[in-house]
Amino acid sequence: MSFTAVELIEIKRDRGILSPDAIDWLIQAYTEGSVTDYQMSAMAMAIFLNGLDGDELAAWTSAMLHSGEVLEFAEISAPKVDKHSTGGVGDKISIPLQPLVAACGVAVPMISGRGLGHTGGTLDKLETIPGFTTGLDPQRFREVLIAHGLVLAGQSDTLVPADRKLYALRDATATVPSIPLISSSIMSKKLAEDLDGLLLDVKTGSGAFKRDLETARELARTMVGIGTMNGVHTVALITRMDQPLGREVGNANELRESIEVLNGGGPEDILELTLAFGEVMLELAGVGGGRDRLLETIATGAALQKLVDVVVAQGGDPSVIHDPSLLAVAPSEAVIEADRDGYVDQCDALIIGIVATRLGAGRERKEDVVDPGVGITVDAKIGEKVQKGQPLAQIRFSDPARWEAQREMLAKAWVIEDTAPLIEDLIVERIDASAS
Amino acid sequence: MSFTAVELIEIKRDRGILSPDAIDWLIQAYTEGSVTDYQMSAMAMAIFLNGLDGDELAAWTSAMLHSGEVLEFAEISAPKVDKHSTGGVGDKISIPLQPLVAACGVAVPMISGRGLGHTGGTLDKLETIPGFTTGLDPQRFREVLIAHGLVLAGQSDTLVPADRKLYALRDATATVPSIPLISSSIMSKKLAEDLDGLLLDVKTGSGAFKRDLETARELARTMVGIGTMNGVHTVALITRMDQPLGREVGNANELRESIEVLNGGGPEDILELTLAFGEVMLELAGVGGGRDRLLETIATGAALQKLVDVVVAQGGDPSVIHDPSLLAVAPSEAVIEADRDGYVDQCDALIIGIVATRLGAGRERKEDVVDPGVGITVDAKIGEKVQKGQPLAQIRFSDPARWEAQREMLAKAWVIEDTAPLIEDLIVERIDASAS
Repeated sequence: MSFTAVELIEIKRDRGILSPDAIDWLIQAYTEGSVTDYQMSAMAMAIFLNGLDGDELAAWTSAMLHSGEVLEFAEISAPKVDKHSTGGVGDKISIPLQPLVAACGVAVPMISGRGLGHTGGTLDKLETIPGFTTGLDPQRFREVLIAHGLVLAGQSDTLVPADRKLYALRDATATVPSIPLISSSIMSKKLAEDLDGLLLDVKTGSGAFKRDLETARELARTMVGIGTMNGVHTVALITRMDQPLGREVGNANELRESIEVLNGGGPEDILELTLAFGEVMLELAGVGGGRDRLLETIATGAALQKLVDVVVAQGGDPSVIHDPSLLAVAPSEAVIEADRDGYVDQCDALIIGIVATRLGAGRERKEDVVDPGVGITVDAKIGEKVQKGQPLAQIRFSDPARWEAQREMLAKAWVIEDTAPLIEDLIVERIDASAS
Repeated sequence: MSFTAVELIEIKRDRGILSPDAIDWLIQAYTEGSVTDYQMSAMAMAIFLNGLDGDELAAWTSAMLHSGEVLEFAEISAPKVDKHSTGGVGDKISIPLQPLVAACGVAVPMISGRGLGHTGGTLDKLETIPGFTTGLDPQRFREVLIAHGLVLAGQSDTLVPADRKLYALRDATATVPSIPLISSSIMSKKLAEDLDGLLLDVKTGSGAFKRDLETARELARTMVGIGTMNGVHTVALITRMDQPLGREVGNANELRESIEVLNGGGPEDILELTLAFGEVMLELAGVGGGRDRLLETIATGAALQKLVDVVVAQGGDPSVIHDPSLLAVAPSEAVIEADRDGYVDQCDALIIGIVATRLGAGRERKEDVVDPGVGITVDAKIGEKVQKGQPLAQIRFSDPARWEAQREMLAKAWVIEDTAPLIEDLIVERIDASAS
């Protein structure tokens, strides 16, 4: 079939429905360059404002998925399951979770992203391991996955090229926060992994892409719908992102805290989410044993060993896993102190995430370079009792001028009240195919 | 003030209001190229779907106007008035009208456009005069206007560059038919002419940009509002464009018919609109005499002489004005005949305009070259009685294969019924500042 970009933009502009053929043609022509960036940005704005229905969304995701190579692991008999998070502050759950689940017999072909804006990226955290490479070609990706049942990689140029191009365009044209465009972007990348099951961690709260629960629900339902239509068992958990997860924010800091969990320690919230997500991934894989099996796999050291094996397979130095004090630490240190006695009522994830990014832990722009040793250790989280002068956070930074510019903003992350706040459950609800 | 394109797109995307400073910055940055085409197309789609309010529209038009040179004719004491038409089929009214009004003592700095799509352009019609140039530099434009009180020019590169760039972008991104974008495009160009008065001919019917009267009213009110806010006396007449104006469609054909009017002849509808528009232009100029003065100016030959003077001043050969049979005629001829007896109920302007364009009288794409001798002479218009076998139209063309491909479509332009239809007034209504 032959179309023109103008006629397809017109259809969406006028709230019409694009046929699957039209969507295939558009995404293909955009990937090849015969549909221009300025035509695609007009289409993206029309979709932002007028939406895509269920059939259009399925076709859009499928066209994105097929814009490049689609992985295929027929020779792997183990069930293949991955987890995706919509992104948060201090969200290092993938690092303990994926080796743990893999050590239970699930194949985990993890393709992850880099941090952008106030949220960190799993790749940046893993790359604080000296020598570790996340840029694997498809052949090496397959070899590591077959050998270890786990691979921890970045997106290669051959997978979903339409998404890479469209994401950069959306970023420059104020068309990022659109549920159909976000859902199809995430799901096209995950469906390219040839999965049997997918767990989606959809965040709600100040550190999430949108604060409100209703938007999180809509995003979760939309992505579960796309996964299910494509034959992948998909479950979403909506989880709170009001304050950072765990006590560490920053790349080396978060890797250290992740290793604590695999050593049987770590903060309670990180362990709780790791186990809850692990249970769902085992369920999606049809692997029995549940929480007990997960706890035992940590206790025997098998989960930590799985991380060590994959670090070695991907060229990393395993000594930092055994001794995380060897990981990067930024040279300068500062402390934020409580200005009164009371209970921590807010410990704002967004502010802490923005400050960590500005100090160098993340990227404000894609071309920024991450400073692995920059980090914020959160000493006082919501509900905790503090006294005036007690540290709320310890900050590690490389550039004193940058820190001075952020000090006042970071202090605003904490609100201290006379009475203890109600602590809400970390996991808000589960959304699966029956609900979508 | 400093802005970013992304934050301004976000505001309009979310139905916010852009400040005048923001709009100035955006148009300036787009003209210079630091705001990209893909950002401006996202903005254009956001405006298409979410609109601009009155203040935004005034600021947008003013920013466009000031993106380039603005003409200034302080040394001309005569009132300066121009007319703009939203475009129709067979719409040659400017050619008899502007010399007629100029011959009555009004200064007419006409800057006109080329034909695109199914509507013809005044420039293309004038350029069928051998040697006549519409590409005047600002100095020559001024000289001709001062010497003759009339100049018939195309848009120079220095006037409203933002509009030229934005119009091409809108054409490629399905963002043309938007009332705020159309209004600001038209009005920025007209306001750059340093006018005292402006007459807008807003078409309604099958050959117009939108068929329905309500859209024509909204467009008319919007443009009258912009003109009035900028201190230009602006009046709009809404006129019917269901069938072609006059009997001629095509460049040389329409010039011939225009000269007939200046010679005291011509079809009734062309004369009627020329006089009605001329009356309003005299009124806007504060020049007395009305219709009688216009008729006398035709009768004395002063109007025709004004056209001759300006043709000579702009390098054209005046012999074709004195003897229009010297104008181009395409080599081949065909006729469409009535297939039954009855009264013409429809003589569709859109179909006739599209066929004329496809035969070479207009441009489907900007880079197309116009064939001056191609044309359609309409023998049977709405309400006229015809007998089976009587000609409905005579077609002049250069390429027989193109004509064969259009014959069937052209025949569909006429609908013949047993009874005569009601003939509606050509001028539907007047909209001026008090109504907007």
